Parts: sequence; C-alpha cells; structure tokens
Amino acid sequence: MLIEHLGKRPAVDPTAFVAPNAVVCGDVTIGPGTRIMFGAQVIAEGGSIQIGRECIVMENAVLRSSAAHPLSMASNCLVGPNAHVVGSTIEEEVFLATGCAVFHGSHIGARAEVRVNGVVHLKTRVASGATVPIGWVAVGNPAQMFPASEHDAIWKVQEPLNFPLTVYGFERSEASMTKITQRLSQALATHLADKRLD
Amino acid sequence: MLIEHLGKRPAVDPTAFVAPNAVVCGDVTIGPGTRIMFGAQVIAEGGSIQIGRECIVMENAVLRSSAAHPLSMASNCLVGPNAHVVGSTIEEEVFLATGCAVFHGSHIGARAEVRVNGVVHLKTRVASGATVPIGWVAVGNPAQMFPASEHDAIWKVQEPLNFPLTVYGFERSEASMTKITQRLSQALATHLADKRLD
Amino acid sequence: MLIEHLGKRPAVDPTAFVAPNAVVCGDVTIGPGTRIMFGAQVIAEGGSIQIGRECIVMENAVLRSSAAHPLSMASNCLVGPNAHVVGSTIEEEVFLATGCAVFHGSHIGARAEVRVNGVVHLKTRVASGATVPIGWVAVGNPAQMFPASEHDAIWKVQEPLNFPLTVYGFERSEASMTKITQRLSQALATHLADKRLD
Repeated sequence: MLIEHLGKRPAVDPTAFVAPNAVVCGDVTIGPGTRIMFGAQVIAEGGSIQIGRECIVMENAVLRSSAAHPLSMASNCLVGPNAHVVGSTIEEEVFLATGCAVFHGSHIGARAEVRVNGVVHLKTRVASGATVPIGWVAVGNPAQMFPASEHDAIWKVQEPLNFPLTVYGFERSEASMTKITQRLSQALATHLADKRLD
Repeated sequence: MLIEHLGKRPAVDPTAFVAPNAVVCGDVTIGPGTRIMFGAQVIAEGGSIQIGRECIVMENAVLRSSAAHPLSMASNCLVGPNAHVVGSTIEEEVFLATGCAVFHGSHIGARAEVRVNGVVHLKTRVASGATVPIGWVAVGNPAQMFPASEHDAIWKVQEPLNFPLTVYGFERSEASMTKITQRLSQALATHLADKRLD
Repeated sequence: MLIEHLGKRPAVDPTAFVAPNAVVCGDVTIGPGTRIMFGAQVIAEGGSIQIGRECIVMENAVLRSSAAHPLSMASNCLVGPNAHVVGSTIEEEVFLATGCAVFHGSHIGARAEVRVNGVVHLKTRVASGATVPIGWVAVGNPAQMFPASEHDAIWKVQEPLNFPLTVYGFERSEASMTKITQRLSQALATHLADKRLD
C-alpha cells in the first residue's frame, strides 16, 4: 500500500518489491533490488526516509522518520522481523536483527551489527564494524554498551541525551505526557488527508 | 479495518484516526484525538477495550482484551511500536515504550513509564510515576522490579500469580497446552462470524 | 490474504481461521481448528510450513521458512504476539510467548516453553518440558541457557554454529552483507510473480 502524505509520494525503484500488505507512506525513496516484506511499515512523518539498493526489510519491521529526524539507510542493509528503526543514519552493510530498536539521531557505522532485541538509543554513535550483543543497550557518543541489567549505568549516559527534548521538543522539566501526546495527536492528524495510491 | 465481533461494533470518535491497515475489532471505544497507527491491532475478545482521548498507539502495536480481562487506557498515553498490551488497567499519561509487554490483570499508575522491551507481568501493580527499566520485569503487587537475568527471583513472585488459571482458566496442576489451545480455538472460532464494517 | 508463491498454494483446513489481514503465503499447510490471528505473517520462502491442529498464532507473529529450513509445528502449540519463528521443528504443546525469537534449524521438544522475549538460537535443541526464561538465550545442542548479559558465554557457543553459513550459505570468512543481501534480494524477487488468491 503506497500512500501520499503531506503532499509527498513514495518513490519506489521499479526493481524493488513492496509486499501487498506492507505500507510505504510519504517522502520515502526505495532503491533498486530492495525488498519490503509482508507487514512492514515504512512511514515518513515529515522527515524523509531514504533506503539504498538491495536492502532487505523483513516482516512486520517498522521504519519511521519524524520532521526533525529523517532516516537514511545505505545499501545492502538488513532489517530483521519486528525491528523498529526511527530517525537514524545507517551506513552500508549494517545488520539489524530481529526485534532490535534503533532510536532518533543515532548513527550506525558500516558493517555494524545490532543483534536480537538489541537497543541503540537516541543520539548514539555505533562504530563501524561494532556489535551490540543480544538484548544489550548501546548508548552515548561514542556508544557504550551495557547489558540491560545495568540500568543505573545506562541511565547515567542516557539522561543527558534528553529524550523528551530530542524526540518531542519539550525540555524534561517542562515535558508532560499530556503535552507530548497533544503535540503528536495534532501532528498525526495530517494523516486524515492521506491519499492511497494503489 | 473496523470489524464487528460478537455483535459489538467499535465506537471511534470522529476526531480519531485509524490507519487504513490497522484493525479495530469488537467492543472497542476510541476517544477524541486518539491515533491508531499503521499495522496496529486493537482486538476486543469478549471484554471491552476503552481508550481515552489523545492516546497514541504506534505502528504494529497489539492491544487486546479477553472476556475476563478488559483493557482500559486513560487519556494521553502512548503505546510504542511493536508493544503488546492485554487486559490491563492503565491510568493517564502512561508511556509504554517500543516492544514492551503488559499482561492480564495488571494496573499501571498515572505517569508511569515502561521502557523498551520492559515487561509488566500479570496481576502486577506498577505505582504512579514508577519506571520499569529497559528489558526489566515488573512482577507482583506492589511491583518488584528485576533485570531478566534474575530468573529465580522473578519466578518466585510470578508463580503464585498463577498464569494458567488467571489467563486460561485452568489450575496449573490441571492445565495442559492441549486443554488451553482447544479452549482458545473454540473461543476464537467466533471470529468466523465477524463482519467487516468498511 | 492467501498468496500463491513459487507455484505453491496454502492448504488451509476448512475449520481453521485466518484473520482477514493475516497473510499465508506459499507452501503452507494449516490444520483443523488452528487460528491465525490479525496481522500474523506466515510466509513459506521455498521450504514448507506445516502447522498442526488447534495451534494459536497470535497477532503480528511472524512464521517463516526458507528453502534450507522448513518450519513444522505440531498440534496444540501457541505462538504469542510479535513472536518470530523461522525454520524450526517444534513438537506438540509448545508455548512460545510474546516477542520471543526462534531461529533456523532449532528443535523445541514437546511441552517446552519459551518465555517473553526469550531467544532460541540457530541449531539449538531445547529439551521437552524445558523453560527458556524471560529474555534469556538458549543456544547449542543440547541447549545451554544464559541471561543476555552473558554475551561472551553465549558467543562461545553460538559462533561455531555458524549463522552466516547456516542461514545465508556463506562461510563466515567469505560472507559480507553485500553478498548476503544480493542473494536475498534475488531470492525474494520471486515474490514479484506471486498471485493473490482472495
């Protein structure tokens, strides 16, 4: 399902495949030979999504951008089933395994690997060739890697990265879920004017 | 896709948005300004699902109820991509991050936060304003929180909560997967009579 | 949505239920009383998928096979929401919880249980009646079980199982993401000739 959003239409290379129940919405460019498999959601919310050539986006993966955080993925990357990737810059030949989560403003170097259920947190820079182990959390610039059990150490690095400001535009001291969801609700209302293209 | 199930039709506020490939099925009420994004599944299996105003249910999230465990979510909550929430009572301004899982009979207080891949187990009560860290498990009433590595400690609290009885209606000593799946198979057969409304 | 792929059509028992937005694609056999719930993707990529009677495949679960790794699931199993199961042999009465991941060439014995976000890695053999705890990793034959924090111990067992060779057909020393994605891109191009059957 291809959708025009905010006046932008997906540009899908004629040699790419988009599964009939996958969604590609808005300002999305998909390169030659790329495969968007069943149930994947590729949703550009203002910022663009650019996916290179011969990328494999597997079943029920979610790729998103926001106005402040476009998503770019260079060629020959793989995004596993049920993964969630938003607003990141991903170099070539990156492997994002099943169920991993990659957040806003992060940067993943070429040939890096995020293993099953691994997390790359906001504004985190994962070096080329690095590995985020199964279920571990990469956070900071340069990335430090912690097992999820190390909550205090993770939070010490994560808190100054300021998720509320970076992702929702509110200083932590002023943020509230009411403000955040009202802003999101308003922004997402623009989907009411979407046009299905197929 | 709106679906009538067991004679009940979703009631979606006219100012809400349901993505064209999201499903809202059965006895579901969706409040003003709420957004049900692409690929989300909101499935009321007997018990009701009530979602307040200005909630954001993100891509490929799953919200479910069962006959014994309705799901209510107050206003201004956010459910992240690939999250799974079933049969819980969720107060206002709760943040349920990417990939988290919230189970039957749980209660999550206002402004609590369940981080990426966090788990709120059955009959668990998370206090207002509390945080479940990335990948941790909240279990018990009041919730104790453990990293997933602490399996023995988790199970000591979890076992008496009696998942087989609470969720499937069989005492642990009498439960078997054959009994459980036969009961589920019979209950879910009612979907054969569903009516698509759009 | 039923799809013919590589000339093979799904065989769905007339007493089974496939949700209107679930996909069943290719050489898939679904037994009596089995339920494929909303948003589930059951995708046979060359190898067959055989699902027995009274299995419950929940919302947004992903079941896959590849040419080298068929998937078989005996009767009375449950696959939780957002789980990912590929190319495994699963005996009867297995419980695969929310968000778990089960990989190529694995074998899960009868009445075993993989808990929330648990991982069964490639070529791993989980004994009958065994439990993989929440977020833990089962790896090896016979399976050793580790919390995800034990990355070094996991990798010591996992590395010789040779994911690149087993899953993608390239020796680790010769594998590259360019080779892997080009091979996948070519294999998945066969979906361009799929036929929707409903």
